[in-house]
Amino acid sequence: MSTEFPPVEPPDETVLREAEARHAVLTKPVGSLGRLEELGNWIAACQGVVPPKPFVRPRVVVFAGDHGVTAQGVSAYPSEVTGQMVANFLTGGAAVNVLAQVAGATVRVVDMAVDADTPEAVSAHKVRRSSGSIDREDALTREECERAIAAGRAIADEEVDAGADVLVAGDMGIGNTTPAAVLIGSLTGSEPVAVVGRGTGIDDQAWMRKTAAIRDALRRARLVISDPVALLATAGGADLAAMAGFLAQAAVRRTPVVLDGVVVGAAAVVAEELAPGAREWWVAGHQSVEPAHAIALGHLNLKPLLEFEMRLGEGSGAVAALPLLIAAVKVLAEMATFESAGVTSKE
Amino acid sequence: MSTEFPPVEPPDETVLREAEARHAVLTKPVGSLGRLEELGNWIAACQGVVPPKPFVRPRVVVFAGDHGVTAQGVSAYPSEVTGQMVANFLTGGAAVNVLAQVAGATVRVVDMAVDADTPEAVSAHKVRRSSGSIDREDALTREECERAIAAGRAIADEEVDAGADVLVAGDMGIGNTTPAAVLIGSLTGSEPVAVVGRGTGIDDQAWMRKTAAIRDALRRARLVISDPVALLATAGGADLAAMAGFLAQAAVRRTPVVLDGVVVGAAAVVAEELAPGAREWWVAGHQSVEPAHAIALGHLNLKPLLEFEMRLGEGSGAVAALPLLIAAVKVLAEMATFESAGVTSKE
Repeated sequence: MSTEFPPVEPPDETVLREAEARHAVLTKPVGSLGRLEELGNWIAACQGVVPPKPFVRPRVVVFAGDHGVTAQGVSAYPSEVTGQMVANFLTGGAAVNVLAQVAGATVRVVDMAVDADTPEAVSAHKVRRSSGSIDREDALTREECERAIAAGRAIADEEVDAGADVLVAGDMGIGNTTPAAVLIGSLTGSEPVAVVGRGTGIDDQAWMRKTAAIRDALRRARLVISDPVALLATAGGADLAAMAGFLAQAAVRRTPVVLDGVVVGAAAVVAEELAPGAREWWVAGHQSVEPAHAIALGHLNLKPLLEFEMRLGEGSGAVAALPLLIAAVKVLAEMATFESAGVTSKE
Repeated sequence: MSTEFPPVEPPDETVLREAEARHAVLTKPVGSLGRLEELGNWIAACQGVVPPKPFVRPRVVVFAGDHGVTAQGVSAYPSEVTGQMVANFLTGGAAVNVLAQVAGATVRVVDMAVDADTPEAVSAHKVRRSSGSIDREDALTREECERAIAAGRAIADEEVDAGADVLVAGDMGIGNTTPAAVLIGSLTGSEPVAVVGRGTGIDDQAWMRKTAAIRDALRRARLVISDPVALLATAGGADLAAMAGFLAQAAVRRTPVVLDGVVVGAAAVVAEELAPGAREWWVAGHQSVEPAHAIALGHLNLKPLLEFEMRLGEGSGAVAALPLLIAAVKVLAEMATFESAGVTSKE
């Protein structure tokens, strides 16, 4: 599978108008459910039908990978945690597992570049172990990067073919907010200090090391911003490249996506370069405390559903917001109309 | 039952600290779930146990009532809609019914002062039909007001005794944002133009009439702000008085409450006067577009979970936020610890 994406069609504008018209006859003042109405209209437009159908298979895919830049002391946790957390996802003990249950979603984890051996069930798409330290060398070769993007596309296809009707991408990888900040910084023209964040909770010394690493990586990344594949190879990683492929392919497959935090946000910014218009198929689940995330959402013109000061990743913020999508669908599908309920409409 | 409330004890501070300590050993960086952690800690403190127990009976009570001030042309809808909507709640067609299902909540509607006959099942606590036009006369007599507050208390007791472990108050009543704005304006010292809003969607002419009515009612209300019962009688209504009693009694009964929009917010501001400290038992489900709502939440020092530009009432914004409480409980109860999952903690 290539890294060339077909043109992305937007969600159905005619259906969007039909959904708006339906909202106008439900037993409430027009527009009184605010963003819940907009969300329902958008889902209807994605599905191409009014009222929208209830989601039957909300699906989270967590993309795991390690990052060579952790050698520069940019994280509060050691790399071995990535593989340990993959095991935790598989036994259902991580935050995203628990939050997914609230929304009736199931979780899949894929090892794209964990620096450890993981079970076969999760490593089928693995590209390599870890990545180059992006402050001084490329994360991946171009060939590795293309394989990772293709894997992300294939995973999106697998999920949509298996019936997934709303997708969430999540991330797991110690050190991954460093490449995320670089990808966002390079494509939005932002300075290192504007995109650096505390990640999992680094101290001031680590913050200085991380800022320096981002500065050096940004210098390398800015040379290739017109080529998203080269950018992912230079300053991303196999997890980020796969996520970008996944997000772009979800749009190609006309499947709505709930975005998570800064790492998924970085992949989304690149995915929009790979497949312009893909962002029309995404909603921002939340806005995290990572400064680069707000920049990414602004760049994509997406307004977050939740502002909960989260900074975990894994897809946790997106699945926390998923019940709002379920609610938005249900309102359009199940509320009474003024006529059916015998309620007088506006004077 | 009197309108004198016993002192309100705060949620258990020791248990709050235990919940924070539990969050610190779950497989995620400390604090990385942001407000979801705070919410879980608060629910644990309300329940007095760590981890908190899953909610078994989330319960919404919609307080319906008409308002004499509608005669001054302050609403976009005729008063007959109140009774029609009561019927709609009973058949499950209203927004709050649909949204409650997403959160596993059930809905009860009580007619406190609907200007129509309603089924016996909902009118057991009815105080009167409609209310006085508050711009020129009292909404209720003091005796009616005391009965309404006592009814709200009795309803809270009924629900808690029947097993409700999280409560939502909702409102239904054409014209009810006018007394809500007056109650909030009087207790926060705000001007009419700061608290007036578009309600269900009034035009500029109606906005001017509503602002004048609020101005006149505020003048009357300001004389009695040191007596919350007198204030509810002067400028509230039986629905608002019952809601205030309900919110205060929920706190007495150590039961957490998710607040809704401006009407419930107005009742909450008065309930905090009736039973100081009650606000510790409440969380703000959302912030509506009604300007007085932000003022009320600021006054109560509550930060909304959602900012969704909603303005429907019924408890709709509160139930939309309810899945976040369910998620917060589940995280504390079900996530793996670093030890149980064999994950290395922070370096």
